[in-house]
Parts: sequence; structure tokens; C-alpha cells
Amino acid sequence: MIILGIDPGFAIVGWGVVEYNKGKFRVLGYGSIQTKAGLPTEDRINQLYDGMNIIIEKYKPEVMAIEELFWNTNQKTGIAVAEARGVLLLAAYRQGLKISEYTPLQVKQAVVGYGRAEKRQVIAMVTSILQLPKPPKPDDTADALALAICHGHAGGSVLGQYYKM
Amino acid sequence: MIILGIDPGFAIVGWGVVEYNKGKFRVLGYGSIQTKAGLPTEDRINQLYDGMNIIIEKYKPEVMAIEELFWNTNQKTGIAVAEARGVLLLAAYRQGLKISEYTPLQVKQAVVGYGRAEKRQVIAMVTSILQLPKPPKPDDTADALALAICHGHAGGSVLGQYYKM
Repeated sequence: MIILGIDPGFAIVGWGVVEYNKGKFRVLGYGSIQTKAGLPTEDRINQLYDGMNIIIEKYKPEVMAIEELFWNTNQKTGIAVAEARGVLLLAAYRQGLKISEYTPLQVKQAVVGYGRAEKRQVIAMVTSILQLPKPPKPDDTADALALAICHGHAGGSVLGQYYKM
Repeated sequence: MIILGIDPGFAIVGWGVVEYNKGKFRVLGYGSIQTKAGLPTEDRINQLYDGMNIIIEKYKPEVMAIEELFWNTNQKTGIAVAEARGVLLLAAYRQGLKISEYTPLQVKQAVVGYGRAEKRQVIAMVTSILQLPKPPKPDDTADALALAICHGHAGGSVLGQYYKM
């Protein structure tokens, strides 16, 4: 199963593609799509849409694991991030991917084994599980890979018990 | 100038197309795109995206006037509406439309002449200005036509003074 993990954002969308097979992960690619401040919203979300399509065409994932959105205190950012997330969902849907949503709590639980884990623990576990040469940058990329790992665990039976929260 | 007014939403997107020429409005079409409750978010926003594309291809507007989004108290709705608005912006952008955003205050000011006007006053003015046989339904459609009128006024010089708020 090829999984595309997506950490949604407006300025930065983290992405990571992993293959999950018989309890083992193999990383296929990861990075971030970044949009330039100062451009109109519609231009920036269009860049995200184009970027998503390129990634999906290249890696042909079957499923997208994307973080569920919660309001933060910065409402202006919140709206733009939700608008961006809309086009990320659209790109995945139109290319026939299944879509699974996870909360940050679920991701931390699946990757670190502890729902209140710190960001650096998540990054360290992602780096270890995927045997990466160094921690992926920016953090959004590590988060995207964590989402992909989380989905692999959720879909397999190995760590299914993590979801009894 | 052909203007597409859009009242963004997740369950209902109101739309209205008007031609604005030398201070006069002529309505070309209006209605609403509605998505069914219970379907996955990505399915529903894809329906909105398809619907938008059909409207734009049919009426070939040069500009989309869309309501600016503010958080309401229902955060769950707020996220879905913002996600939907993202794909509405995307459709307009990819079809080459210019995009103008207006606040509800600006729309009421432009249509009724009073920023704190009630919804029924907006509907009555839209019906009168566009010489519609009866008030458009649902209200989202009237709001979309009000946005188109607002943009016509803003772009022309007739009611430019309304924007000194």
C-alpha cells in the first residue's frame, strides 16, 4: 500500500510518500510545497493544487492520510489553511485516492506511542522508523511522514490497539 | 462586465450572474449548488467545484465577487465552509476570473445603503434592482446576487462613495 501523508497548510504543505507492506515501511519521497507570502490566496492555493497533482502523478499513492483541522487562535491563518486544505482534498479526490483523516493525538499515539508526545519525539521516531539519514526538514515534512506511518499502522493489524483511546 | 456573485457555503453555495453596463444591471442567471449531507467532505467539495466550472463555462463571467469569510460560533461548519471556499476560489482562478472579496457590511452598504441592514431588506433591494419577478430562493442566492451588485457598484463610479466607510 502506497500512502501519501499530508500536513495541510497555506504557506507550507508537508508531504511524504511511504510504502507499507507486511508491517514494514519504505520511504519513497518527501518534501514540502511552499507558497510565497504576498501573492493572492487563489494563486497560492492553485500552486498547492498543482503541487499535489504532480506528487500524486509521480508516486501514485492509493490513499491520502491528512491531518484533521482544528481552529487555532490565529483565525486569519485558520481560514487560509482550511481553504488550502479544501484544494488538497480536491486534488486527492479527483485522482481517485481514498482519504483518511487523523488528529494530532492519533498521529503521536501511533508514531511515538504516547498521544501527548513532543514534536521532537515525533521527528526522532519518524527518522528512526523510516531509517532516514537525518531528520526531515521542515517539521511539516516530518509531520506528513508521521501521518503516513499512522495510516499504515491503522490499516495494518500490528498497532491496531493504539486506536482504542 | 459580467459578474459572478458567490455566497460561499458547504451545503449550499448561492450564485448569481449579472451584467453591469453603464450603471445598469441585467441578470443573466442565478441559483444554488447544493450538496447532500452525509457524503464525505471531499465528495461534496468536488460537487461544488464541478458546479462552479459549469456556471463559469456557461456565463463566462470576467470576475467573481465572493464574500469574505469570518468565523462563526460553529467551528465545525466554519472549517467545512472554508474548505469549500478554497475550491470555489480555485475554480474561478483556474478559469481566469478576477476575484474580489467583500464583507457582509460592504454588501449591505452597497445594496441597501446601510451596513447594518437586515437580510429581508437586502433581498427586497436585490429583487428590485434586478427587476426579478419574485425574491430569489434560497437566501444564499439573493446574497450571491447582492455580491454581484456590490461589485458592480464598486467597479463603477456611481456608488463609489459608499466605500468610504
